[in-house]
Amino acid sequence: MNQSDKAELLRSLHRGPEILVLPNAWDAVSARIVETEGFPAVATTSAGCAAVFGYPDGQRIPRAEMIFLLTKIAAAVDVPVTADVEAGYDDPVQTARDVLAAGAVGFNLEDWADNELLSIDEQVRRIRAIREACGMSIVINARTEIYLAQHGDAATRFERSVERLNAYHEAGADCLFIPAVTDAETIGRLVKAVNGPLNILATPGAPAIRELKALGVARVSLGSGPSRVALGAFRRLTRDLKTNGAFDALRSEAIPYAEVQGLLTR
Amino acid sequence: MNQSDKAELLRSLHRGPEILVLPNAWDAVSARIVETEGFPAVATTSAGCAAVFGYPDGQRIPRAEMIFLLTKIAAAVDVPVTADVEAGYDDPVQTARDVLAAGAVGFNLEDWADNELLSIDEQVRRIRAIREACGMSIVINARTEIYLAQHGDAATRFERSVERLNAYHEAGADCLFIPAVTDAETIGRLVKAVNGPLNILATPGAPAIRELKALGVARVSLGSGPSRVALGAFRRLTRDLKTNGAFDALRSEAIPYAEVQGLLTR
Repeated sequence: MNQSDKAELLRSLHRGPEILVLPNAWDAVSARIVETEGFPAVATTSAGCAAVFGYPDGQRIPRAEMIFLLTKIAAAVDVPVTADVEAGYDDPVQTARDVLAAGAVGFNLEDWADNELLSIDEQVRRIRAIREACGMSIVINARTEIYLAQHGDAATRFERSVERLNAYHEAGADCLFIPAVTDAETIGRLVKAVNGPLNILATPGAPAIRELKALGVARVSLGSGPSRVALGAFRRLTRDLKTNGAFDALRSEAIPYAEVQGLLTR
Repeated sequence: MNQSDKAELLRSLHRGPEILVLPNAWDAVSARIVETEGFPAVATTSAGCAAVFGYPDGQRIPRAEMIFLLTKIAAAVDVPVTADVEAGYDDPVQTARDVLAAGAVGFNLEDWADNELLSIDEQVRRIRAIREACGMSIVINARTEIYLAQHGDAATRFERSVERLNAYHEAGADCLFIPAVTDAETIGRLVKAVNGPLNILATPGAPAIRELKALGVARVSLGSGPSRVALGAFRRLTRDLKTNGAFDALRSEAIPYAEVQGLLTR
């Protein structure tokens, strides 16, 4: 399958009949696990990827390093890959081109950079410029940070988010992402209010996948959660080792060596 | 602490009074967890590091990529870092120099490459050349693959391993590593037979840390086990998501987002 077929496949996964569920990967082997467990696409997590190289989240990783890791992730799997490249770093059009060159076919674009919400006009201009530069070969997941950043008056967050997401859709975004909304009633209202497929972030307290599907959500991603589950298991092992001199998790929790090697030998 | 002080510190950790326990890291954030959980040094795992970029184990990752990841790991922590760089790739002296340039102060050197056991003479020559090139600023952990590769006649493995490890010690190795030996009786005999500090690989079935310490083992590493524990937790999450549409591990097993960010902000 060539890259533009992969982009079209990823785009079509937002139109049902199944809800698109994305347990975000942070490196090549975690991406390969997502693929072999039967998920139809791989999404990355910026926080998880940045942590691989020791950077905190929030556009601290140099774009070239994020793209390098993305290249390794995209090369590890056959399914379409969509990248979390935060707010596009210093140049969102170049970042979109780099995402394609890395072998991925979609990406998230945040409307928040340097601790500030971009104006709607600015973000619309950026989305248009990306679409113009890359055509339909890239799937744009436009994200608003209004809820996550607890931006402005809480009473107007819903309306301001919908206004933004619909403007981003009008500008060419394929999917509309609103992290930090977890109550079913608001999610249901968002599905009705936005003009494109809606992406919800699954965090503790969010409705289960079947409820999100029933509400009409098109796409669910898990952000950095899965990478932090992996790190949690590792930290428990280090503590068992430190406290009890024991390493039982190697037997009870690890994927066997040969199985991991099998994942990486295609 | 400068790099040669770090090398001396790592060397001294092989002389007691505590046994040196190394839950191997595979990227920067896992290294940072090892450090913050109170371990006095960080060792890497070649299989785990290679998997980050999608390569199987066994010198398949290009040296430059392994060194790039090592640089990120070494930059993430203050404690001494010792690198698993397999058999030194195509040029063990250059690899040792690259390990130092990456900010690490020790490394493992295997006596097995391209599916063959190197001759003792060849491995001794390699160790001498590294010591000559790098002086005491690098801690050499010389490893024999005889047991792991189940090489040759089982009845002579012990004697052949001891002969090799003592030759490697004589050539300048600081520590002697023999993976795939897990029974206490053989470990006890090895401690007595080799002339330098002994490194044992903790795998399922190996004695607990306090027993290894009582046997006189100087250093215990866990190889790729910890990275596969982390991947195991991730895979269980993907299966729960696929089968039940649930993601309870995000609450019950993940390190909280803010805590991971705290680890990466020094």
